[in-house]
Amino acid sequence: MLTRIDHVGIACRDLSERIAFYESVFGLTVVSREVIEEQGVKEAMLRVAGAPAATSYVQLLEPLGPDTPVGRFLARRGEGIHHIGYGVADITAALASIGATGVRLIDQRPRHGSLGASIAFLHPADVGGVLTELVQAAAG
Amino acid sequence: MLTRIDHVGIACRDLSERIAFYESVFGLTVVSREVIEEQGVKEAMLRVAGAPAATSYVQLLEPLGPDTPVGRFLARRGEGIHHIGYGVADITAALASIGATGVRLIDQRPRHGSLGASIAFLHPADVGGVLTELVQAAAG
Repeated sequence: MLTRIDHVGIACRDLSERIAFYESVFGLTVVSREVIEEQGVKEAMLRVAGAPAATSYVQLLEPLGPDTPVGRFLARRGEGIHHIGYGVADITAALASIGATGVRLIDQRPRHGSLGASIAFLHPADVGGVLTELVQAAAG
Repeated sequence: MLTRIDHVGIACRDLSERIAFYESVFGLTVVSREVIEEQGVKEAMLRVAGAPAATSYVQLLEPLGPDTPVGRFLARRGEGIHHIGYGVADITAALASIGATGVRLIDQRPRHGSLGASIAFLHPADVGGVLTELVQAAAG
């Protein structure tokens, strides 16, 4: 069902500073920057892998304010890994299959994510403390 | 420098139970189980991606006791994502390059990791709160 690790989401206090760090220390390349008001974040996707079909990203997340999911995460845990996103070929089928096992779905249906993908989150309490995201990449 | 997301390391209290969860809910496949006394863990590597060259893993980690790095992590944070491991082609060159930027290296030289890989950890305080591992896969 899972086709790859699509990205690891990392919470940070200063997006521009953290982007500069990943570029200079690890040689990653920014492929997009977006503000997603609905999720209360500004974010950047940095490409890790070379081959397009297997591309994985580091997703850097800065909260738009303290009263947002990532803002509360920073207050509680500090900067660090926030979630993991796995690629799936068919997110609707994956949600149905996973939901049938009893894992609670934060998103009953896919919604808009980074780079035009369809995404949905699973409840971390049902995935061993791991906030888990499914990602069906945009066609093309 | 980084060629892929090699794995995400996830701390858990009961390895067998967590393996069964990832197999049944997400359809992942265990490719190895190891006890690494030196690191105080027993662990399993579960394959995510299909293509061998781009394989990524979920690494499940159960501490051998409370007074181990993963045991202390569980006591402090509970179950969840523990670290991220990136693939590199030449770990000695990568360590030299990263060390030159001022990031502190937990391992000055590579040591033995899962699946016969050479690995080294970077200090999370210098990587925005992210415990970061470099992984040069075993040849062949």
